[in-house]
Amino acid sequence: MNAYRPNPAETTFLLFDVLRLPQQLAELPALADVADPALMQQVLEEAGKFVGEVVAPLNRDGDEIGCRFEAGTVTAPPGFADAYRAFWQAGWPALATAPEDGGQGLPSVLEAVLYEWLSAANHGWTMAPGLLHGAYECVKHHASDALKAQYLEKLATGEWLATMCLTETHAGSDLGLVRTKAVPQPDGGYLLSGTKIFISGGEHDLSENIVHLVLARLPDAPAGPKGLSLFLVPKFYADGSRSAVVCERIEEKMGLHGSPTCVMRFDEAHAQIVGEPGRGLNAMFVMMNAARLHVALQGVGLLDAAWQKANAYAAERRQMRAPGPRVDGEAADLIHRHPAMRQKLDTQRAWLDAGRVLAYRTALELDVAKHHPDAQRRAAALRWCALTTPVLKSAFTEQAFSGGSECLQVFGGHGYVREWGIEQIVRDARVSMIYEGTNEIQAIDLLIRKVLPDGGAALNALLDELDDGHPESQPRIAALRDMTAAVVLAAPTDETLAHEVAGDYLRATALVLLDWAWRQIENAASLQDQRWSRPALALRQRVLPELAMRQHMVLARCAQSQPHTVIT
Amino acid sequence: MNAYRPNPAETTFLLFDVLRLPQQLAELPALADVADPALMQQVLEEAGKFVGEVVAPLNRDGDEIGCRFEAGTVTAPPGFADAYRAFWQAGWPALATAPEDGGQGLPSVLEAVLYEWLSAANHGWTMAPGLLHGAYECVKHHASDALKAQYLEKLATGEWLATMCLTETHAGSDLGLVRTKAVPQPDGGYLLSGTKIFISGGEHDLSENIVHLVLARLPDAPAGPKGLSLFLVPKFYADGSRSAVVCERIEEKMGLHGSPTCVMRFDEAHAQIVGEPGRGLNAMFVMMNAARLHVALQGVGLLDAAWQKANAYAAERRQMRAPGPRVDGEAADLIHRHPAMRQKLDTQRAWLDAGRVLAYRTALELDVAKHHPDAQRRAAALRWCALTTPVLKSAFTEQAFSGGSECLQVFGGHGYVREWGIEQIVRDARVSMIYEGTNEIQAIDLLIRKVLPDGGAALNALLDELDDGHPESQPRIAALRDMTAAVVLAAPTDETLAHEVAGDYLRATALVLLDWAWRQIENAASLQDQRWSRPALALRQRVLPELAMRQHMVLARCAQSQPHTVIT
Repeated sequence: MNAYRPNPAETTFLLFDVLRLPQQLAELPALADVADPALMQQVLEEAGKFVGEVVAPLNRDGDEIGCRFEAGTVTAPPGFADAYRAFWQAGWPALATAPEDGGQGLPSVLEAVLYEWLSAANHGWTMAPGLLHGAYECVKHHASDALKAQYLEKLATGEWLATMCLTETHAGSDLGLVRTKAVPQPDGGYLLSGTKIFISGGEHDLSENIVHLVLARLPDAPAGPKGLSLFLVPKFYADGSRSAVVCERIEEKMGLHGSPTCVMRFDEAHAQIVGEPGRGLNAMFVMMNAARLHVALQGVGLLDAAWQKANAYAAERRQMRAPGPRVDGEAADLIHRHPAMRQKLDTQRAWLDAGRVLAYRTALELDVAKHHPDAQRRAAALRWCALTTPVLKSAFTEQAFSGGSECLQVFGGHGYVREWGIEQIVRDARVSMIYEGTNEIQAIDLLIRKVLPDGGAALNALLDELDDGHPESQPRIAALRDMTAAVVLAAPTDETLAHEVAGDYLRATALVLLDWAWRQIENAASLQDQRWSRPALALRQRVLPELAMRQHMVLARCAQSQPHTVIT
Repeated sequence: MNAYRPNPAETTFLLFDVLRLPQQLAELPALADVADPALMQQVLEEAGKFVGEVVAPLNRDGDEIGCRFEAGTVTAPPGFADAYRAFWQAGWPALATAPEDGGQGLPSVLEAVLYEWLSAANHGWTMAPGLLHGAYECVKHHASDALKAQYLEKLATGEWLATMCLTETHAGSDLGLVRTKAVPQPDGGYLLSGTKIFISGGEHDLSENIVHLVLARLPDAPAGPKGLSLFLVPKFYADGSRSAVVCERIEEKMGLHGSPTCVMRFDEAHAQIVGEPGRGLNAMFVMMNAARLHVALQGVGLLDAAWQKANAYAAERRQMRAPGPRVDGEAADLIHRHPAMRQKLDTQRAWLDAGRVLAYRTALELDVAKHHPDAQRRAAALRWCALTTPVLKSAFTEQAFSGGSECLQVFGGHGYVREWGIEQIVRDARVSMIYEGTNEIQAIDLLIRKVLPDGGAALNALLDELDDGHPESQPRIAALRDMTAAVVLAAPTDETLAHEVAGDYLRATALVLLDWAWRQIENAASLQDQRWSRPALALRQRVLPELAMRQHMVLARCAQSQPHTVIT
């Protein structure tokens, strides 16, 4: 079983040559000092070593042994706790948090690369620190000074881990149905009661303390999402006493056995409010783009892990004669010479390279949106993040699963047995299509919340930005403009239409972004090199043809538009 | 967790009203007597009861507890052995085997339905009897009279189970690489030595004896597939002594835990030859259409099992407001009113209904090919089976996995935890894309072995048969004819072309068959009924648009055809 290895050299090529990261960062005063290529390269090389040497080797036990639950306590798989201690002590969680909070203040894009690699190496382990950034931002921007004094540095450095307690049995995609209660106390605190499910890292032995951020409802709160407030409850209070938060059990899951998925019961637990009453969802949604980008990066990483395994296997295993002239005296050819296998590998590589470019660019835009001196540039960056994030989250988690399954197929029967580790990737990847907003929610977010409200103006502005006048890409961009116009026209009088085409519309947007990303790669890479020419060919032959199909599906539905179509 | 339930009433509608089974069987003298609709209906109702009441309830333990290996013995999951005893004692394995061998001689199509249902209810358990039919046919048509006297009735009735020992570590898709040796003995027998892997049911406690059919090589045999002969080694010989066949271990797999996947070592085991020396593959390939159809039926069954779960969940679970007018006073709507969920359910239903029609029709054609008095009709039936079987095997195993995953998505986070049983279906289904010839092998079988050699004549004859002049279907049939003509023209001077387009060509063929199947349904069903109108609409809106994409991919590759393109 060959373990995943990060590739810093190729990553710096994508960051520096394709995306021109140093030049982009130089425009951001807050980051100009740390935008030194040599420094960034060094950070990536160190990160690559840590991921490859410390985290990747624990992945198999994470799956096979998994987390153990006993009487309210959770024991992480062998080695997980030591690796996490080494991780935070080396300062990795603090890579991109603010220096004033104890962080290193490096660009978000380096954190993006780090988490892509970590997810590829060990998705289960990475779930624990993966939730830190959101909790840090949430506390930083919404908590009182007193709470910040207690928690912000611990979260910024990763000394303590955190959870997001949102889901309840009856309230998943629909957080408006949350029932957990918070009753105000005379001292200004609250007593929190209720049961939350699907809480990643709700209980474990990786860090001394765990900070829970919990959505709950005040007694006088209105029904629905506007009645939700956000609260903080730690596992241990400052005086060392334990809060009334109990892990009732952990779920048996399809995969991701290295991450405990907990049922957490709050029994009048002493809590503090974070932000204003009734603004709980608002406090969580400010960090949503970063969190969803993080999941997209999991998808990219897991696809890379699967690709690396399949590519290595295909270069060693021989079965049957491939078409074409004989290249050696063996009775059978290497699998990677068989066209069906070659196509699978190159197609996943095409997704993967584009995914990196798109995700890194989006991470960069997160910093641009925060730090650029020019308001118009900041607005463009916000637009980029708002529109591309749901697309990347959906498209790359889907690809991690379906493309991971294609990589499994390269192994034949050996792919189905545990030994090679490829089936674990497919099982682990499946959850990323569901959490942090299901992929169907992402499609609604893109089309119904972001494209339609301004009549497609933001989307068309993004397409202006993507349009470099390349003759092959222009019909693709035009196709997405046409689809947008058709939906904008038909949706107002057909209540279900936008919901019905949202998934196809998202896929079409993903393909236009893939096309853009590959043009950026082609501008910087040598297409004489099969490393780049093969996936570029696969993109054209096997990936982009889907665009016309999605266009047809959306336009056909718009053409059949019936005012007030009702599903009964 | 709701268990799978067979639906005999709907099945008889498909068999009797859509496929006109009684009229078709009446043309076959060997089956005319047993083609009584009332009898067939009764058999299906009894089968449905057995599957639903005896086999389905064991599925969860089959996955969770799985098979246990200890010192060469394999213990099946709880209840498996009792259920198998009840199964063969009730005569189910003998349903379609010949009366002269102890069978009931009923039409193959009833056996097809039975195995679809069994696979849906409990894929792992069904692997054991699933291999019987092939072994029975193999012994019946190729073994000596002495071997038949010992084994045929035991296999025909299912009292003894059987294996197919083909794969070795280095020889999977490429059986020509098999190294297991058979050394002739003075008594006319052979001593067999070698190690076989991925042997389903190689060892277990379900039946008193196990009959192994083993591909091996005689000492003087040429290299490659023509050097292979077929041998029979039982677990126990007639005198009760045990053969030198040892189960070394069972594999840890992604799923299918209810079926032991064994490594079997043969240490100079006393064996008998089945058929002529050097004709081993030939002996196995006669039953290939039936075996591959069986796997296609697994796909259809597993997709149904997933669909039933998702459909039931979507009719109970509420999340968020769906578009359209309010239908009740609840704060959230039933999931099945959300367009994205409705589309998923209807799309899988469209595949599923078509899969049944196509698989049952193919099972019928297997009987027509055997029993029809008219040689031309027999030839047409053989053509149908040869061309559609690889398509159905590939398309419906792919759909069981990808469509099963779509059904999982309907559950949101609940789909990822074991509790609901939907993730098991996705894991179990994955193997069907690999075994009995990988789906890539099916694509090569269709295009390179069956379509191209006669310049597309057989394929075009099949399309003549599918063409009922329906105006919507004619462009689809024409598209496949065009693709066929283009590949026939370009392939001879471009060595890799056919391999590169084979997968797309198979998908296009699958879609044309789906379209045909739904026209058969529409001729018999009321399209006023949402049961049929919804999947029919999903077929048109969400499934068939893929055909134009596949056509584009194949034609674009043909247009770029380069004589002697070489993959290096």
